[in-house]
Amino acid sequence: MIIKIKKDADATNVDRLKKHLESKGFDLEVSQGVSHQVIGVIGNTLSYDINSLYGFDCVEEVIRIQEPFKEVTSSEKLVKVGDVVFGGNTIPIIAGPCAIESKEQVMEIAKTLKKMGVKLLRGGAYKARTSPYSFQGLGKEALSILKEVKDETGLLIVCEITSTSQIKDFENVDLIQVGARNMQNFELLKELGKLDKPILLKRGFANTVEEWIMSAEYIITAGNPNVIMCERGIRTFETYSRNTLDIAGIIAIQKLTSLPVIADPSHAAGRWDLVNGLALGSVAAGADGLLIEVHSTPEKALSDGAQSLKIERFKSLYKSLKAVAVSVGRKI
Amino acid sequence: MIIKIKKDADATNVDRLKKHLESKGFDLEVSQGVSHQVIGVIGNTLSYDINSLYGFDCVEEVIRIQEPFKEVTSSEKLVKVGDVVFGGNTIPIIAGPCAIESKEQVMEIAKTLKKMGVKLLRGGAYKARTSPYSFQGLGKEALSILKEVKDETGLLIVCEITSTSQIKDFENVDLIQVGARNMQNFELLKELGKLDKPILLKRGFANTVEEWIMSAEYIITAGNPNVIMCERGIRTFETYSRNTLDIAGIIAIQKLTSLPVIADPSHAAGRWDLVNGLALGSVAAGADGLLIEVHSTPEKALSDGAQSLKIERFKSLYKSLKAVAVSVGRKI
Amino acid sequence: MIIKIKKDADATNVDRLKKHLESKGFDLEVSQGVSHQVIGVIGNTLSYDINSLYGFDCVEEVIRIQEPFKEVTSSEKLVKVGDVVFGGNTIPIIAGPCAIESKEQVMEIAKTLKKMGVKLLRGGAYKARTSPYSFQGLGKEALSILKEVKDETGLLIVCEITSTSQIKDFENVDLIQVGARNMQNFELLKELGKLDKPILLKRGFANTVEEWIMSAEYIITAGNPNVIMCERGIRTFETYSRNTLDIAGIIAIQKLTSLPVIADPSHAAGRWDLVNGLALGSVAAGADGLLIEVHSTPEKALSDGAQSLKIERFKSLYKSLKAVAVSVGRKI
Amino acid sequence: MIIKIKKDADATNVDRLKKHLESKGFDLEVSQGVSHQVIGVIGNTLSYDINSLYGFDCVEEVIRIQEPFKEVTSSEKLVKVGDVVFGGNTIPIIAGPCAIESKEQVMEIAKTLKKMGVKLLRGGAYKARTSPYSFQGLGKEALSILKEVKDETGLLIVCEITSTSQIKDFENVDLIQVGARNMQNFELLKELGKLDKPILLKRGFANTVEEWIMSAEYIITAGNPNVIMCERGIRTFETYSRNTLDIAGIIAIQKLTSLPVIADPSHAAGRWDLVNGLALGSVAAGADGLLIEVHSTPEKALSDGAQSLKIERFKSLYKSLKAVAVSVGRKI
Repeated sequence: MIIKIKKDADATNVDRLKKHLESKGFDLEVSQGVSHQVIGVIGNTLSYDINSLYGFDCVEEVIRIQEPFKEVTSSEKLVKVGDVVFGGNTIPIIAGPCAIESKEQVMEIAKTLKKMGVKLLRGGAYKARTSPYSFQGLGKEALSILKEVKDETGLLIVCEITSTSQIKDFENVDLIQVGARNMQNFELLKELGKLDKPILLKRGFANTVEEWIMSAEYIITAGNPNVIMCERGIRTFETYSRNTLDIAGIIAIQKLTSLPVIADPSHAAGRWDLVNGLALGSVAAGADGLLIEVHSTPEKALSDGAQSLKIERFKSLYKSLKAVAVSVGRKI
Repeated sequence: MIIKIKKDADATNVDRLKKHLESKGFDLEVSQGVSHQVIGVIGNTLSYDINSLYGFDCVEEVIRIQEPFKEVTSSEKLVKVGDVVFGGNTIPIIAGPCAIESKEQVMEIAKTLKKMGVKLLRGGAYKARTSPYSFQGLGKEALSILKEVKDETGLLIVCEITSTSQIKDFENVDLIQVGARNMQNFELLKELGKLDKPILLKRGFANTVEEWIMSAEYIITAGNPNVIMCERGIRTFETYSRNTLDIAGIIAIQKLTSLPVIADPSHAAGRWDLVNGLALGSVAAGADGLLIEVHSTPEKALSDGAQSLKIERFKSLYKSLKAVAVSVGRKI
Repeated sequence: MIIKIKKDADATNVDRLKKHLESKGFDLEVSQGVSHQVIGVIGNTLSYDINSLYGFDCVEEVIRIQEPFKEVTSSEKLVKVGDVVFGGNTIPIIAGPCAIESKEQVMEIAKTLKKMGVKLLRGGAYKARTSPYSFQGLGKEALSILKEVKDETGLLIVCEITSTSQIKDFENVDLIQVGARNMQNFELLKELGKLDKPILLKRGFANTVEEWIMSAEYIITAGNPNVIMCERGIRTFETYSRNTLDIAGIIAIQKLTSLPVIADPSHAAGRWDLVNGLALGSVAAGADGLLIEVHSTPEKALSDGAQSLKIERFKSLYKSLKAVAVSVGRKI
Repeated sequence: MIIKIKKDADATNVDRLKKHLESKGFDLEVSQGVSHQVIGVIGNTLSYDINSLYGFDCVEEVIRIQEPFKEVTSSEKLVKVGDVVFGGNTIPIIAGPCAIESKEQVMEIAKTLKKMGVKLLRGGAYKARTSPYSFQGLGKEALSILKEVKDETGLLIVCEITSTSQIKDFENVDLIQVGARNMQNFELLKELGKLDKPILLKRGFANTVEEWIMSAEYIITAGNPNVIMCERGIRTFETYSRNTLDIAGIIAIQKLTSLPVIADPSHAAGRWDLVNGLALGSVAAGADGLLIEVHSTPEKALSDGAQSLKIERFKSLYKSLKAVAVSVGRKI
């Protein structure tokens, strides 16, 4: 790391800082520029809380050089969910309703998706809702329904977990999703790191790319290298769409880590009439997969009907996605 | 609620929308403006997912009229923590280190605070850290230390909880804090709603005032009316301070709810040299309390040393705060 | 518009509000919901300052129903720059250096672009730079160079204007660009509205889609219907890319107006290694054109070298863009 | 500056980078850390475009050490407007309507303000309005009215300029305001730098503290050291208030520059019922002045009535402000 010293710093304080750093085993290289003294600190800072140095009055700025993460750069490049591979040339699509509402509802959608060639079904059991008065999900009952659908259709199941206490019930789930609001629920991440199931880690809607990577690092250092990242839009001042899909964030994950990264245009948009463009744009930009909300009757959905595509619209999008995937040398 | 119909809406779809709303028990008042048809929907929408209406193709916009919350407006105005009252004329100050590091560390600070007249001691046991390599807190050991300090000094204890599984260990904590990252950990909120201890609910750094209120509503509807709100800065594009303290957000809580609301200038600032101004500004603007990080040797702090005030600086601030409180007709 | 009345409103104040509205020629429809009284106000609000109504103490919220714009919805769908059409099936690419530095520099790039089939050359004469110490552009000399290049290559010229006083010098410019920082320089917009040249209106990096449309409305109501919109990223908390390209904003313009809309992935990214993904994503999502910075020696660029593509990289991108355009039924 | 080299950088490219920097006259200090090679670049970078270095493929990050500004740190600490001093112990209040609507309107307010002891009157002549259909200000007529009011009451005049072409008409204005939307209208800043009148430079609603300082640097390097900064709220995701007043930004200006800095709680709030808290908070936090919108009949205001205080409310606030100023050792 690099430490920029204040212009009017007290020499005694600077000395104390240097001794403190040396006592931690760092080598120092002091340099005097035209405006500031700069201390180059050489050594492994991965587990060192560099912000604590601001406690020294002489410190103006502490600049990190070493990346704060490690495992994500050498982790699995290809993550398998059943026989589906994320991170390879083929781009998997995960589709399905926001929340499981009944067996009939989800079975109908599942069969249609199956017929189209979709291999992964999403559906929520425990819903993280802003209001306590909103539908909170069917919980365990939803997980039973998903198991039945899986048994009957062979689709792989993707489902969101919202508490460590639910882990034991997720046995039949093939890909466990951590939602945006739980991206920094570190107690949950640590527990998921003990499983050998793949984890779909959504970006928090107000988290930086670096924080998102650090959350993946939590899961991987705990023992589970099978992490798939999912960009789902960040919160900005713009209100036309619910969130702003950060396509540069998708590219950033590919540059900074070895993890596969998919896009969720439905939650980013918050309204179905923006989903097509965002989905096509994500695939062209290089996303390794998509997560799309599909509902047979969105206007009756108990959750997030606003952003769900009707089956017919999804079929049409699916066809367009195939063409765009081919144009960038991949396939769906 | 009000529904704005698209200009080119299909009449059949509009009819289906109307029938759907009537079937839910709402009364409708249709009105034709110069540009759009508007449907006024009369009835209780508190537990109705109004966004699902976007599933109807004819809907351009759904506008909520009724507030999405209820309990927070009639809940306790004064919340007691031991014999300290939040929401009254006296403004309580909560102070202490970010994390409990050792008994010696916290006992020293605690005694100084006690002597000054501070009645509430904060200190973290389970730390929500961005990096898995950062100090994660002493956990149960920290809670034991806090109990000892409490027994010896009589200070009331404020401590953050990060998982439902910790609740049983928080018996001796007087005010349980929900951190910014857990503001929408709804499973946690529901469990805290079953306790009869006061809860300090921090605003998520990317959550709107309305979402923050909805999280309080989760706790209160679950049975616990003793909620104190805490503004701690929101994430913006500005990087000089770690977050931007939203003083209008403090005022908003006072206008929209009956809950007391305090400010945490330390986490908003992220650097100790901004804490004074933000603390004084918050009290002048009407905050019902403050949460301030104080550390005897911030440069050796294992967590958030950057924003901790040294004891001497805190003493000086405390004096200034008293003067400002009096100037707005209150006291500390 | 809809006016939501406060629960505890004073009846006399509500009466004054009603009389005030009626005196402005509006018809009123009063409705009593379960929580609030609501006044539907019928009439043309386009030129009415609805916010002034908050001056009445009884008003809780004023909700606009009629769009605040008009001309942009019926304006030119196809905008011609020379013989190039924006908004049609073919997607024009504008390329070139950030700033004109010398005749040699720009002529070299221009000839290469011409050979590739690019028809529009960009190059800055007056640069809006954050620092007064940064290169401010060659001004009129740059405009002379651009004319020479135009005469020799036949390329159409795109150049940014930063002040009304420059208008007379832009005679040979084929498409006048309004930069992000001038999107709400209303005096400039009014003057550009008097020209019969097409205008490329960039979105301010902190402006909503609606504000952006209102700025187009300024130009069109002043008499110039030839406006092309350009999304160039918005400012968010994320710092990996300089700005966040808002692809949903591109789609929004197409839904809300009849204007063509292009993307500028270079300024959104702020670093060349993100440009490819954003460019491809924009075209797949439906953008009507692209603006890309290309420089022969970016490391020697006097402005924005960080985000400029080298010629070879641009050639490779150009090929990929053609394939993606075809995959969505268009061509480049 | 510090340059962080990519781990997999090509040695030839690094050599070219070094030669390039040396050719610019910089001294280099190369250092090898555990993860990256780092090049310390010693020399004056004030007028060097450090971003251009990203054009070298080997560069991962360029980190500025020297501040990008200079004049603002040594400029006038006290700025005089007539006989009123900004930056000293006394805190001046600027008050008045958003826009000049008629002589009667402004004279009535002016006389009341005069009687209270307020010395500076604000009033808009040219209004920067989002919509072309909104009231655009009376222009020159407003400036004539302001002159008459000044002659009759002796109040000092504060008025916003929106174009270089208006400068000649601002002769009788005592403090020329640059609005938020023009903070980066560099052509305007350069012209104002040639005047010997004080300039009130508002922060753009999406500009960082550093960018704001750079705009002050534009004015000062052009010859005019009399700059007063004005924080007026930044754009965030929160919509309860129109903008979020950044009190830490006020403190930042005081730490980074020698310029006086005031707050505009009216524009930050966007609604009058938040103005009191923000005004009191700003003064307690250390603001060197306030700019407050006051209107005799806000509900009839042609601009920004929503945020204007009625005279009676302003009188009450004025009294509270005096008390808070005294509590922090200053006076109004």
